[in-house]
Amino acid sequence: MDTMQSQPSASLSTLLDQLRERLGAGAVLTGDDVTARSIDWLTGTPCHAGAIVRPGTPDELAETLRLCHAARQPVVTHGGLTGLVHGAEASPEELAISLERLDAIEAVDPVGATITVQAGAPLQKVQEAAEAAGLQFTLDLGARGSCTIGGNIATNAGGNRVIRYGMMRQQVLGLEAVLADGRVISSMSPMLKNNAGYDLKQLFIGSEGTLGIVTRAVLRLQPAMPDTRTALVACPSFDAMTGLLAHMRQTLGGELSAFEAMWRNHYRLLTDVSGRHAPPVGTESPFYVIIESQAIDADRHGARFDQALESAFEAGLLADAAIAQSDAQRDGLWAIREDIEGLVHLLSPLMTFDVSLPIGDMEGYVERVETTLQEQWPEGRLSVFGHLGDGNLHLMASVGSNDADTRHRVESCVYEPLAELGGSISAEHGIGLEKRNWLPISRSPDELALMATLKQALDPHGLLNRHKVVTYDTQDEH
Amino acid sequence: MDTMQSQPSASLSTLLDQLRERLGAGAVLTGDDVTARSIDWLTGTPCHAGAIVRPGTPDELAETLRLCHAARQPVVTHGGLTGLVHGAEASPEELAISLERLDAIEAVDPVGATITVQAGAPLQKVQEAAEAAGLQFTLDLGARGSCTIGGNIATNAGGNRVIRYGMMRQQVLGLEAVLADGRVISSMSPMLKNNAGYDLKQLFIGSEGTLGIVTRAVLRLQPAMPDTRTALVACPSFDAMTGLLAHMRQTLGGELSAFEAMWRNHYRLLTDVSGRHAPPVGTESPFYVIIESQAIDADRHGARFDQALESAFEAGLLADAAIAQSDAQRDGLWAIREDIEGLVHLLSPLMTFDVSLPIGDMEGYVERVETTLQEQWPEGRLSVFGHLGDGNLHLMASVGSNDADTRHRVESCVYEPLAELGGSISAEHGIGLEKRNWLPISRSPDELALMATLKQALDPHGLLNRHKVVTYDTQDEH
Repeated sequence: MDTMQSQPSASLSTLLDQLRERLGAGAVLTGDDVTARSIDWLTGTPCHAGAIVRPGTPDELAETLRLCHAARQPVVTHGGLTGLVHGAEASPEELAISLERLDAIEAVDPVGATITVQAGAPLQKVQEAAEAAGLQFTLDLGARGSCTIGGNIATNAGGNRVIRYGMMRQQVLGLEAVLADGRVISSMSPMLKNNAGYDLKQLFIGSEGTLGIVTRAVLRLQPAMPDTRTALVACPSFDAMTGLLAHMRQTLGGELSAFEAMWRNHYRLLTDVSGRHAPPVGTESPFYVIIESQAIDADRHGARFDQALESAFEAGLLADAAIAQSDAQRDGLWAIREDIEGLVHLLSPLMTFDVSLPIGDMEGYVERVETTLQEQWPEGRLSVFGHLGDGNLHLMASVGSNDADTRHRVESCVYEPLAELGGSISAEHGIGLEKRNWLPISRSPDELALMATLKQALDPHGLLNRHKVVTYDTQDEH
Repeated sequence: MDTMQSQPSASLSTLLDQLRERLGAGAVLTGDDVTARSIDWLTGTPCHAGAIVRPGTPDELAETLRLCHAARQPVVTHGGLTGLVHGAEASPEELAISLERLDAIEAVDPVGATITVQAGAPLQKVQEAAEAAGLQFTLDLGARGSCTIGGNIATNAGGNRVIRYGMMRQQVLGLEAVLADGRVISSMSPMLKNNAGYDLKQLFIGSEGTLGIVTRAVLRLQPAMPDTRTALVACPSFDAMTGLLAHMRQTLGGELSAFEAMWRNHYRLLTDVSGRHAPPVGTESPFYVIIESQAIDADRHGARFDQALESAFEAGLLADAAIAQSDAQRDGLWAIREDIEGLVHLLSPLMTFDVSLPIGDMEGYVERVETTLQEQWPEGRLSVFGHLGDGNLHLMASVGSNDADTRHRVESCVYEPLAELGGSISAEHGIGLEKRNWLPISRSPDELALMATLKQALDPHGLLNRHKVVTYDTQDEH
């Protein structure tokens, strides 16, 4: 393993001079320009990297990595910095590579329904470019304004519409990535079907920048769905909520685009308890769901949606429903689900979790986590919501402290029950530094060994986002 | 590279004795029991493997590979033997591993909408098990009765419904594979979202058994679509056909489940020319399409489908249409598209191709291939059809001979124009032995080098389906 240093080394200084020469002086940030940046919007932690380099083109990024490789300089990739698992953390002996200048929309093909973008392009910019072409880019999540496509790819992002369109992996047709040694793997095929050898792009999707740095992508677009219907409903029981999911799938078919569950602790906290939002339906039910459906035909779709809710009500699957009658009302419903700022404020210091498990086990799992947390922290609070149809829950815990020992104890409460349920410690947030030591909950020793084999094969000197995701031995001669 | 031998070696005999001891005598086939099997349904070529071993359980398969690894015994995996790129070819010094006894449907979960199967299960058996549970397994292709799930995964199969549900890769939630050294990588998660480290299953999907042997999988099921509407239509031009695709997508939205194009040379050959099928619409148009739509609601769906065709007719996108009024009529329409037996008979000796390219370039591409073939073989024949919405065409060529030199010249005609179009030499059939030397048409030297890096990392002795897909140096000490 590498030796740790307390400050930028002489070799880093030499490298930065080379980078300034090749990329221009403005491409390299040091000193206060580095620490003035925060790498974690939840805590405001400043960036401690030895420097930040900002390539202006994919070629400059490749050149940066070639120079870093020659100098055996470890790097950390920075996208929109909206991650939740300390993936952007960098130490003084590491060089941060920011993709902020690689933010171009290179092309939109309305006929082939594809968009070609650079990795630093913010998600929302891509969504808007697709809309302007009369199509839609279907990935959507709360951080859309800041998170980047490169980060979405590196973490295989999920979000609100996975139930209909799948995760980021399903949206990527072509990909270009730079390997640790600066070689460019350009597989920018716009084709839906391409079995000409190994599908190399899969290596870079969801591996959190540890096998290469994504520079560009060809993404799939979908037909625009002009009519959106949204409701927030209250369910009398967990079984009613899962019954409602099956019912909406059955009656709306492929039109169902979101089914976002909220446990009462979340719904109440953000309505009655805090007064941050007026409750659109009463707060006495144990479960709440935001249901969204998108379709081509406005008139009949509205009737289908209302009828589906009505028959669900008659079947006892929901106790009350508020159907949005305007865009403003729809935004108001979603605001309760997406008010992460409110949670940060109300549950400080906040610990966020992202797990997946079989839907049928969720009620018991949440009860168990709640009980074990309350035994240790009677004043602790838990807020639970998530993408029910995807088997994905987010748990927000607040137990009064956030130190490493407390954090580890809370993590035990959240992660350990997943082992026997066959659950995952990360549904969509990734592993980063934060969850690396918990991977054996979800992965076998042979799986972990194979991950290390891949890491060693693609990044033998351990230069890319080191210590994140996988544990491995570098072959570094130094 | 390994030395070639003309017959089973002494070390293979020793290994076979070990395998008989561990797996039972019936698990090992030799002599006539091997050569009586054909590895290629198109040509009837007999199997030349040194022996065939048939493990009865995933554990027995792992044990087989551990023994083979210890003996540095190269192996070739056999599934349903319906491949088209010589992926099953085995020489006398190779041991074929047949998955025919690993054909169990292990579990169906109607609530979670998943099915757990062994790799040797035929596709149709999986489709039927899903149907019995009120759901559907969406992958579908002509070889459904013989091809196996393991082969579908290893080749990332496509087929008729990719336009709606995606390829095999999109259907795989969990996967178990055995590495070259016999280690079992079991990632049998039924979860839709699981970002707990690298998504290892992606390595084994589409890599044609060169990185590991798939033993089991958890597959996604979809809601059953009780109502299917099918039509065969004639289009007055290529532009009308692509306009029709856009029109059907727009009017049917997500319900469109197949859009199978046929060039006139294919349609005429199987109707008028051969008399094998009565033509459901006249044979004077240049292009034909089978359009299929599947939905939940029988009554309104039929009206939507008819109306979509009617408005397409009014817009000049189609010249004539035959709408199936019964299951028998539907089967009759599909029979024209899927009559591969007829093609084998009529175009003997037949060469089959499977390419993808941007839809807008297809008309010119086919014309160019047709012209260059006719220049060299004035009596040659070409039949073209494919999954238009996926950018995937199948070309069937017959030029009177099938020897290696002729084959290479025909391949040049078909593959070389793809380079400048950014097309792929394999959309869904894979590479096998047949297309390996053509990979540089679709892949860069750096991509090919990365494939070799992966192969070396996972199969350092080059024991799995050697010489197929990738070119690499083994680290074998022998």
